[in-house]
Amino acid sequence: MSLPGAAKVGFGGDYNPEQWPEPVWHQDYRLFDLARIDTVTLGVFHWALLQPAPDGYDFSLLDRIVERAAAEGRRICLATGTAAHPAWLARAHPEVTRVDFEGRRHRFGQRHNSCPSSPVFRRLSAELARRIAARYAGNPAVVAWHVGNEYGGACYCERCADGFRDWLRDRYGTLDALNDAWCTTFWSHTFTDWAQVEPPSALTEHWRGPDHTAFQGITLDYLRFTSDALLANFLDEKAAIRESSPDLPVTTNFMGMYRPIDYHRWAPHLDFASWDNYPPDDSSPAWMALSHDLIRGLKDGQPFWLMEQTPSHTACRDVNPLKRPGVMRLWSWQAVAHGADAVLFFQLRAARGACEKYHGAVIGHAGRSDTRVFREVAALGAELDRLGDATLGARTPARVALLFDWDSWWALEISDGPNRLVRYQQVVSAYHRALWDAGVDVDVLPVTAALSRYQVVLAPVLHLVKGDLADRLAEVAARGGSVLTTFLSGRVDEHDNAFLADVPGPLAALTGVRVDEWDARGPEFVNPVLLADGVDRVEVASRLVFELVIPQGAEVVGRYRADFYAGTPAVTRNRFGAGDGWYVAAGLDQEGVSWVVRRVLDRHGLIGPYADVPELESGVRVTPDGVRLRFLLNHRAEPVEVAAAAGGVDLLTGDRVEGGQPIRLDPYGVMVVREDGSA
Amino acid sequence: MSLPGAAKVGFGGDYNPEQWPEPVWHQDYRLFDLARIDTVTLGVFHWALLQPAPDGYDFSLLDRIVERAAAEGRRICLATGTAAHPAWLARAHPEVTRVDFEGRRHRFGQRHNSCPSSPVFRRLSAELARRIAARYAGNPAVVAWHVGNEYGGACYCERCADGFRDWLRDRYGTLDALNDAWCTTFWSHTFTDWAQVEPPSALTEHWRGPDHTAFQGITLDYLRFTSDALLANFLDEKAAIRESSPDLPVTTNFMGMYRPIDYHRWAPHLDFASWDNYPPDDSSPAWMALSHDLIRGLKDGQPFWLMEQTPSHTACRDVNPLKRPGVMRLWSWQAVAHGADAVLFFQLRAARGACEKYHGAVIGHAGRSDTRVFREVAALGAELDRLGDATLGARTPARVALLFDWDSWWALEISDGPNRLVRYQQVVSAYHRALWDAGVDVDVLPVTAALSRYQVVLAPVLHLVKGDLADRLAEVAARGGSVLTTFLSGRVDEHDNAFLADVPGPLAALTGVRVDEWDARGPEFVNPVLLADGVDRVEVASRLVFELVIPQGAEVVGRYRADFYAGTPAVTRNRFGAGDGWYVAAGLDQEGVSWVVRRVLDRHGLIGPYADVPELESGVRVTPDGVRLRFLLNHRAEPVEVAAAAGGVDLLTGDRVEGGQPIRLDPYGVMVVREDGSA
Amino acid sequence: MSLPGAAKVGFGGDYNPEQWPEPVWHQDYRLFDLARIDTVTLGVFHWALLQPAPDGYDFSLLDRIVERAAAEGRRICLATGTAAHPAWLARAHPEVTRVDFEGRRHRFGQRHNSCPSSPVFRRLSAELARRIAARYAGNPAVVAWHVGNEYGGACYCERCADGFRDWLRDRYGTLDALNDAWCTTFWSHTFTDWAQVEPPSALTEHWRGPDHTAFQGITLDYLRFTSDALLANFLDEKAAIRESSPDLPVTTNFMGMYRPIDYHRWAPHLDFASWDNYPPDDSSPAWMALSHDLIRGLKDGQPFWLMEQTPSHTACRDVNPLKRPGVMRLWSWQAVAHGADAVLFFQLRAARGACEKYHGAVIGHAGRSDTRVFREVAALGAELDRLGDATLGARTPARVALLFDWDSWWALEISDGPNRLVRYQQVVSAYHRALWDAGVDVDVLPVTAALSRYQVVLAPVLHLVKGDLADRLAEVAARGGSVLTTFLSGRVDEHDNAFLADVPGPLAALTGVRVDEWDARGPEFVNPVLLADGVDRVEVASRLVFELVIPQGAEVVGRYRADFYAGTPAVTRNRFGAGDGWYVAAGLDQEGVSWVVRRVLDRHGLIGPYADVPELESGVRVTPDGVRLRFLLNHRAEPVEVAAAAGGVDLLTGDRVEGGQPIRLDPYGVMVVREDGSA
Repeated sequence: MSLPGAAKVGFGGDYNPEQWPEPVWHQDYRLFDLARIDTVTLGVFHWALLQPAPDGYDFSLLDRIVERAAAEGRRICLATGTAAHPAWLARAHPEVTRVDFEGRRHRFGQRHNSCPSSPVFRRLSAELARRIAARYAGNPAVVAWHVGNEYGGACYCERCADGFRDWLRDRYGTLDALNDAWCTTFWSHTFTDWAQVEPPSALTEHWRGPDHTAFQGITLDYLRFTSDALLANFLDEKAAIRESSPDLPVTTNFMGMYRPIDYHRWAPHLDFASWDNYPPDDSSPAWMALSHDLIRGLKDGQPFWLMEQTPSHTACRDVNPLKRPGVMRLWSWQAVAHGADAVLFFQLRAARGACEKYHGAVIGHAGRSDTRVFREVAALGAELDRLGDATLGARTPARVALLFDWDSWWALEISDGPNRLVRYQQVVSAYHRALWDAGVDVDVLPVTAALSRYQVVLAPVLHLVKGDLADRLAEVAARGGSVLTTFLSGRVDEHDNAFLADVPGPLAALTGVRVDEWDARGPEFVNPVLLADGVDRVEVASRLVFELVIPQGAEVVGRYRADFYAGTPAVTRNRFGAGDGWYVAAGLDQEGVSWVVRRVLDRHGLIGPYADVPELESGVRVTPDGVRLRFLLNHRAEPVEVAAAAGGVDLLTGDRVEGGQPIRLDPYGVMVVREDGSA
Repeated sequence: MSLPGAAKVGFGGDYNPEQWPEPVWHQDYRLFDLARIDTVTLGVFHWALLQPAPDGYDFSLLDRIVERAAAEGRRICLATGTAAHPAWLARAHPEVTRVDFEGRRHRFGQRHNSCPSSPVFRRLSAELARRIAARYAGNPAVVAWHVGNEYGGACYCERCADGFRDWLRDRYGTLDALNDAWCTTFWSHTFTDWAQVEPPSALTEHWRGPDHTAFQGITLDYLRFTSDALLANFLDEKAAIRESSPDLPVTTNFMGMYRPIDYHRWAPHLDFASWDNYPPDDSSPAWMALSHDLIRGLKDGQPFWLMEQTPSHTACRDVNPLKRPGVMRLWSWQAVAHGADAVLFFQLRAARGACEKYHGAVIGHAGRSDTRVFREVAALGAELDRLGDATLGARTPARVALLFDWDSWWALEISDGPNRLVRYQQVVSAYHRALWDAGVDVDVLPVTAALSRYQVVLAPVLHLVKGDLADRLAEVAARGGSVLTTFLSGRVDEHDNAFLADVPGPLAALTGVRVDEWDARGPEFVNPVLLADGVDRVEVASRLVFELVIPQGAEVVGRYRADFYAGTPAVTRNRFGAGDGWYVAAGLDQEGVSWVVRRVLDRHGLIGPYADVPELESGVRVTPDGVRLRFLLNHRAEPVEVAAAAGGVDLLTGDRVEGGQPIRLDPYGVMVVREDGSA
Repeated sequence: MSLPGAAKVGFGGDYNPEQWPEPVWHQDYRLFDLARIDTVTLGVFHWALLQPAPDGYDFSLLDRIVERAAAEGRRICLATGTAAHPAWLARAHPEVTRVDFEGRRHRFGQRHNSCPSSPVFRRLSAELARRIAARYAGNPAVVAWHVGNEYGGACYCERCADGFRDWLRDRYGTLDALNDAWCTTFWSHTFTDWAQVEPPSALTEHWRGPDHTAFQGITLDYLRFTSDALLANFLDEKAAIRESSPDLPVTTNFMGMYRPIDYHRWAPHLDFASWDNYPPDDSSPAWMALSHDLIRGLKDGQPFWLMEQTPSHTACRDVNPLKRPGVMRLWSWQAVAHGADAVLFFQLRAARGACEKYHGAVIGHAGRSDTRVFREVAALGAELDRLGDATLGARTPARVALLFDWDSWWALEISDGPNRLVRYQQVVSAYHRALWDAGVDVDVLPVTAALSRYQVVLAPVLHLVKGDLADRLAEVAARGGSVLTTFLSGRVDEHDNAFLADVPGPLAALTGVRVDEWDARGPEFVNPVLLADGVDRVEVASRLVFELVIPQGAEVVGRYRADFYAGTPAVTRNRFGAGDGWYVAAGLDQEGVSWVVRRVLDRHGLIGPYADVPELESGVRVTPDGVRLRFLLNHRAEPVEVAAAAGGVDLLTGDRVEGGQPIRLDPYGVMVVREDGSA
């Protein structure tokens, strides 16, 4: 099972008519028509509505909502509505709420508030999903099931502690294996009974918060357990849905690079991926591109839904800037460029009260259609209508892979030493950014993915190496590909125990280096690195981590310029089989990272045709019919003119593009060129 | 009932002889005589002294203290001493202590430590007040009752939860009304039983502290409930006092702009207002002026008492700077200029131990009279003696009102979006500062105050608009006055639900604008605004909030200069009836605010005669006999010379001042000019 | 009883073979041989190993570990291993874990996790020590007992509350005395039953953390109680050891300037002192020197052990820089220069997992001997071998004393007012630094120490003055010595109650000043101070605290240059008897402090021969035979050349040094010169 069938890119978003009297619905649909909105996500928080008391369900209002949506011709993504439990449930079963990291049992409030191990929550959430599916599965307007919402958080209650112990028993079998995995001889931690194991929290192994733990192995396992416990909640509901809806696809909305949940462990259980795009600021197109690529990588390159984005501004940040005119359109097309087959908003109508009332919406509190935001939404709706099915099902033809690994993320950031300022996302983003600047299509993949189709594999800060990964990376190089890894890679096994070998452990043979020791400094300290190949020389900055490398066969590509280790290797390349293994020992700045990545790409002729035009993003999708679509996205507030790399037709305007001739993109402008000769 | 009768400005402060052996008292009174101290506040923390055990009261020491004070000719402000409960009470009744925002039941310690809903606290605090009043009401030296002390804080215990539910039942009547007010359809929050309602805390609706809540309506009501619950404690004691003291005025000491308590809801229950002046730093004369004006506005312009100020320095800050020579005198006269009929210190003698031992005092640990601080206190005492009754009962003849609204303060600062950096006090202070710089007398008023006597009403960040306020503001303009409001006004109703109308909601007709959307940015981002009327043009900075305005009849006074909305209105003026309504859409800097306010004042001829002399404060009080007193206060460390606006006599020196002739104020100098021809 | 007997400086460190299979031990000893490691600390965390269940002890593995170490000829410092309790103990007796400052009972995790008042902890920890001592006391390889580890932290449970009440009853006898000591009349705090006393915590007297308390007296006593309660744990184990080991010395490893524990109260109970040197950064040689001097001062100048240092880097900091080549050697010799008779590392072999796996070790995860770090360790081992017993038992011939007082530290930093930014360690360090720069040997002493052997006594920020200290300081001056004290000295008595006298209270006669008032400012505010004696004038900066002094006989040495107190005294000197008393009223910068300290030293001819060579540390030890050893330590990364102050032989090279002739030290270089003519 895969994405819902569709004739065009879905357009619409979260819609909560249950918050409004029915006369308002009429106004909504009139405006939806104006904006060509064809898809609505219903019921994301309707548990209390559907089950107002322990012993009664009431679908009457939802019936009217669904009937109306269907009658108006909208496709429905129907939610199970279990991401916030009703007040009566918390009152009747206080154990349904979570215990936080500080050990405090919460009481009714907020959302994402249910203990994942609570039997009553698991029973009633599944029952609600079961009844919704049974009631609405037959409605042809319903095209997908939306389970829960933005799963996340953790619980530290006694039930979760028991769940953790069961999970550990499954994983380790014996206490001896557990003690060995967690290295419990250290600090007299040997467990002699499963019941002695406590969730790692502020009351047990942690200080200064979730990243400071006495036992990395325990904390790492609790992160995995929490991800699995929440996945079990998802699976409870999915199974209940399947009882009466065997064929409709099921999803839940992810949040891009979200540390608490290992989306790679979840992905096989979703029929299609979807995510909510709220970037950290308004100048991070590469960050969004990485997130899109990560989400697309969850289902082996299959298209996904952009489940949420704001049409204008968020409300949850300290400061919530407004999307400039054209930006919402640009970012919507960016999603499509990276594989989105639907573009949806949170929210279609702004709530009257509570914490999201100032979150941007297609329809504001005054219900107007003559606002700038509504006009831009309607214009995009019309544009997507015109595009039709041209992009549906298209795939990204990447020959470069970037490994993204929750285990390494967790292990790196909960580590004591060498440097807390090294952040997984920042390092990975820098390497992805180098690809983005080079105009290269890239798949962002789990460490378990097949690598045979890629010529280049980047594996920055691959702190934890497990399974046969090292062998598979070596194979990439052996057959002529390039593999790049960096400082703080190859350090620990799956239990976060150090490899009892030279650093970088299982990656040593591939990279041909031995890391003898390492220095760590604050960001104010810079060690210049001289990068040089036969052609080019450049001095860049390195910061935070400086590994001291003794080559074991690798050639030196970059050298430190300062300190007692001046002249020693900072970047190396090791011939390995028909290919090579690169090692970046220093915390290079973006310029340095990009220099190294270009060298790697260049060897394989993979630099894109629009490389180096600042903030001009380029990407390709190939349709099932073999049509090659080139997306060009100008992220600048100024126009840009470039020579077209190939001829074709811009699907947004119908205009011809001639190869080699100049093309011009407006500020925040977009082109979708169906390239000549494809298909 | 009003202020205690008096023949001069009261002078003295908090006095704790119970902390000292009686021989020290003798030294104290000798020094009080030297300093002309005529008023002492006794017993602010004497509960444990008066009731050393559950079943026994012991007034013997207080008898001696009161007798001695009376014998020495001092007027007594007698406290009920209930702001800290005794240790035995917390031990016997653990529920008397508070549960904090984090859900933790406290145990005995500190002060302001009683749960306002605790039955035993309410019973025993009232009983103590009852007994004190019964015992001392007949003593003619006792001139006022001082209930509690600096009321504040909140409790989140089960009893307060029950109290909150009762309060809600009174307010809303039905759960349907409650659910509607709180917009509970959002996030599945519908309450089906009053018992399901929880106080909004870190364990329920909040994250990142008291300002981040999932439900603004719930948090807003809990703020109101807390203010009311503490008021009930005050009223318990006041009622008990009234049993035997029907005629003596009752007060409690407020803390100026203190967010947790809505002083406007309390004010009707006080016979006179009093407050403790501890400004945030030593360079905020306008901030103190605003606080004085706010306190005077609590009782419709009636004079108040300055209940506490330090003669030298505080101890509770991280860094506690010393008041420079002359500053204590200057600030004391500033209080009188704004309506104070008493000038009191915390504290008369420094405590030996505990956390206030380094708080400044009239008498230090060595008991000397030859300290600089004592000499300045004594000089002020002599000066006040000479002044006699000249200022008593005088009122400020303001024609400008500034609205100050706790509901808007709360609603703004607990809002998610658009910008957490917008702080109510800062915006209000900027508009008040513009008036202060212009030398204009201003009344700071609740939104419920009669506005008929004012020509100009400023209502900055009036986020929440309730009752008939919008109509009354419109009336001000209709009859020829000017009303000014700003960005983020007119957004929500009394339940914090957005008005389902164009922004600024009920203020739209008056201001003649429609806010289509809004941008928010960090403080590093500046959008210049060009302000211009026919006469004057100036470019100023705006920050944080930028509303995009579509005029609906208003004329444009200021325009943005940058970004995609360059050229659109940032400040507007709308003719309305015989007057006008101003709207400031941008977060103008002080220069911009002052420019706009001057335009408004100028139209009404309200700019003061000493406007624009930097840091020279000017204010007027008019005595019951019609005598007009002009206060001039030089807040600079340098002398200042200006031309006198009117002739008169400086009451502090007896010197003549001639209109138009130069007058000179010393560094930190003060003049109190009885203007010619008045009365 | 004193230090373990030894033929050379002990060399080695913490060794945990229980974490490894026995084949690894073989590798370890081979490398220990290479590095000349002769001393191992065993079993610091072996409780769970030795007592795997409540009813069973198992020494079989420790037997093999000890046997092997003995067979390999190593001296053993054998730990009791009680700094972390086993998991089964926490599960069986939840009360064994601590309740933290926030009132939360912890569960099993981390280390330093036992409630010091827990009966079961006290019984079982003593029993473990008893059994270990009984089993291994007869083994001649065991040379010392290492009790617990890095004692610290506090507990706030009910048992500790009871313990505190007992401790108070012992200290005060009556509640009247308690109430008087704690000044409880303030804020109605009078205690009428011991049971009403609560530990001062976030739930009682504190806000904003451990330094903000409503009652300084209560918090001060809880700090003392906690120090004593942990000492009782140490004494439990020591007594148990003594049952079978009457003669072997007992220690525990301290942490230098560690605020929670008053090491001066502990010192009499240790047979020798030892400590772990982890300086705050890599550029603080004077800070380490102060710590060494403090530790040496614990046992009246007796040599100590450097129990831990890292050979390369820590892991517990946010950023963990690497020790540069030569630095580990330099710092090791610095320890010896200040009195260390052993130089030990944490750790000999790096742990595989958990939070210290990236802490530096002599042997890394790959088990290599060809790392830079191992080579430097081995070189130092060889050097120490060559030195033999030359330094053993040698003492520092100091004529200058610096008082270090935990009570003043605590009282100053928990004080409300005048300035939280004044930190005890910073001020004390500045005065010590002035001595260090001057090349002067100094003893850092408790306030109870005999002062008769010193010519100069520095007592900076001596906030709390108790006992006969003021008299003893006066005696120093009376007999011709110099005493220096500073701002914020002589303020409170042992209960933290202000002296009811002119500041500086009991130090007023000695210093000849009266402090009339004080100003406090943030660090951005500087008041220049002109320092001048007949010979020299310099203007320096002062910050944070500015006391206003009225001389009572003292001559003025420095004057403020700015503000209303410009021209008034900032530094004074009072002739007293045959000597003098100095008072530094201002928060002078290092230059100012050093200027004043030089004036004091100069009068007594105490400035060292290598003063003023930047970062060249000089110190002297005199052996029991009277041999005078001059240590020269170059803390710079550049070489330094100076003229030798005296002739002798460098023990590290055997080279002659001629007085007056140049000597050269390499970057980070060291000399140990046996001076001619000594002994």
